[in-house]
Amino acid sequence: MVAVGEFDLIARLAAILGSPGAAVLTAIGDDAAVLAPDLVVATDLVVEDVHVRRSTSSVADIGWKALAVNLSDLAAMGAQPVAAVVALGLGPGFGDDDAAALYEGLRACADTYGCPVVGGDVSRAAQLVIAVTVIGRASEPRLRSGARIGDVVAVTGSLGGSEAGRLLLEGLAVASPHEAELVARHRRPLPLLVAGQRLAGVVHAMLDVSDGVASDARRLAEASGVAVEIDLDALPLQAGVQEVAAAAGRLPGVFAAIGGEDYELLVALPSARLDPSLTAIGRVRAGEPAVTFVGAGAVAGLAGYDHLAVRS
Amino acid sequence: MVAVGEFDLIARLAAILGSPGAAVLTAIGDDAAVLAPDLVVATDLVVEDVHVRRSTSSVADIGWKALAVNLSDLAAMGAQPVAAVVALGLGPGFGDDDAAALYEGLRACADTYGCPVVGGDVSRAAQLVIAVTVIGRASEPRLRSGARIGDVVAVTGSLGGSEAGRLLLEGLAVASPHEAELVARHRRPLPLLVAGQRLAGVVHAMLDVSDGVASDARRLAEASGVAVEIDLDALPLQAGVQEVAAAAGRLPGVFAAIGGEDYELLVALPSARLDPSLTAIGRVRAGEPAVTFVGAGAVAGLAGYDHLAVRS
Repeated sequence: MVAVGEFDLIARLAAILGSPGAAVLTAIGDDAAVLAPDLVVATDLVVEDVHVRRSTSSVADIGWKALAVNLSDLAAMGAQPVAAVVALGLGPGFGDDDAAALYEGLRACADTYGCPVVGGDVSRAAQLVIAVTVIGRASEPRLRSGARIGDVVAVTGSLGGSEAGRLLLEGLAVASPHEAELVARHRRPLPLLVAGQRLAGVVHAMLDVSDGVASDARRLAEASGVAVEIDLDALPLQAGVQEVAAAAGRLPGVFAAIGGEDYELLVALPSARLDPSLTAIGRVRAGEPAVTFVGAGAVAGLAGYDHLAVRS
Repeated sequence: MVAVGEFDLIARLAAILGSPGAAVLTAIGDDAAVLAPDLVVATDLVVEDVHVRRSTSSVADIGWKALAVNLSDLAAMGAQPVAAVVALGLGPGFGDDDAAALYEGLRACADTYGCPVVGGDVSRAAQLVIAVTVIGRASEPRLRSGARIGDVVAVTGSLGGSEAGRLLLEGLAVASPHEAELVARHRRPLPLLVAGQRLAGVVHAMLDVSDGVASDARRLAEASGVAVEIDLDALPLQAGVQEVAAAAGRLPGVFAAIGGEDYELLVALPSARLDPSLTAIGRVRAGEPAVTFVGAGAVAGLAGYDHLAVRS
């Protein structure tokens, strides 16, 4: 969850930290860091009014999500969770009962995915902040840097649902039979740990769709040093997304490409290895490491997207 | 670094999380959680205006401290650092140059203690918050729950220095030849990783002095199910603390017992194993798990301390 709007700062901070040495196989820049021999660690900060809002999510939902987004990073490495720790800053209006409700949501997610929360820290703060760190194991972690020229770019599941759910929660007037599923998608994302472990043995590169396919495909391109082309017409839409995008006055492919927080897995693999769990949405070509788009809205809606700061 | 003023909340949250299962040997309640087979993990949240102040510390100091306090938790387990991850929330007035300076301080601490920062997350936030998580290894982690009746309670180094440094930074007028050392103690604590690894093979129980000996001795007593008696007259004072305490109108033993953030190691061990690196400050007795005090100020200054909420 990057919300500073600038990847430049992260690159600058990574440069200050330098090369981590032999005990660390892959450090900053992937979904998680890979420690020797098979240990994987990821951390994500969830900030009230930046990543979550109490007007649209319960505190239990927020607790769930804070862990789920980290587990999605493990999923994207093909890792299995070992344990999590939680550092919690309680905002002024956040009482003990709220903290307990937040932990109930954390616990529900921890139980669902077999990732015990084993430690933490609690402090007062100016707003609710939750930093979860997860540790996992992956015998063969799959990085985002392995995409090869000629690979197909594919995605699990469906896109746009979290963003559609968010808009409905914020009051967009659409009578949708899919409202409950869209809202659930936004409030309680489901990290794809099992799919990630299976795909790790099949794909060349993998990352999770946290900020939207448009941003995450750019990360894939940059990490792998390849050009990526995404076909907006090929993006698999969650049921109901089409109607919500229309009500918001946006083309569905653009909506699904920019809408973040779907926590699907974005992969690059040889076309022969495509299976029914994946939808092909683009391809890997030789060229400058950047993402280009084809399909409806590619020019009007996403031209130059590669050079824009991403949404939070 | 507990700053909610109530341990009740932490106990309640720990109960919600439940028992973590077989892969986790020791979870919430020690300095760090112990994962099977020899992995240790700890997390601490540093919040601006709660744990650190930009009026008294540079942002580089804050970066150093955010990692150092976590490394002190590893030291208290007798663990060796493997890697750290950092989740950073940038407050409104905190620019990219500030973030870079903070990372310079983090990096300096990471290099000093051989703990590479391998990943992180950056977001905007209402105030500066830094959640550092450290992972370490300990073949034989030393818990705070092992104190035995008849043990001596002892502490490494000296106490009160960080609190004295803080008061000097906040403007307390004392002409001290030790000002620079006291201020450095507050701004850049030095986690005792080497001492911790050595003591792990010698002592029955160990924890770090983060909130002050009075609080931390209570934790030792509660975790071990024993009574602990602390002699305020026996506390080793850092040079200059006596004068600062006097200027602040406080008895030195009480000052050193309550002043937090010294990051010394508090241990329980058989008296025959005491060595010159340790100062005996109390003993372990049969009785209710609580801490009692003797020496100057024990009645007036610390009576009933066991039942008070601790300072942050």
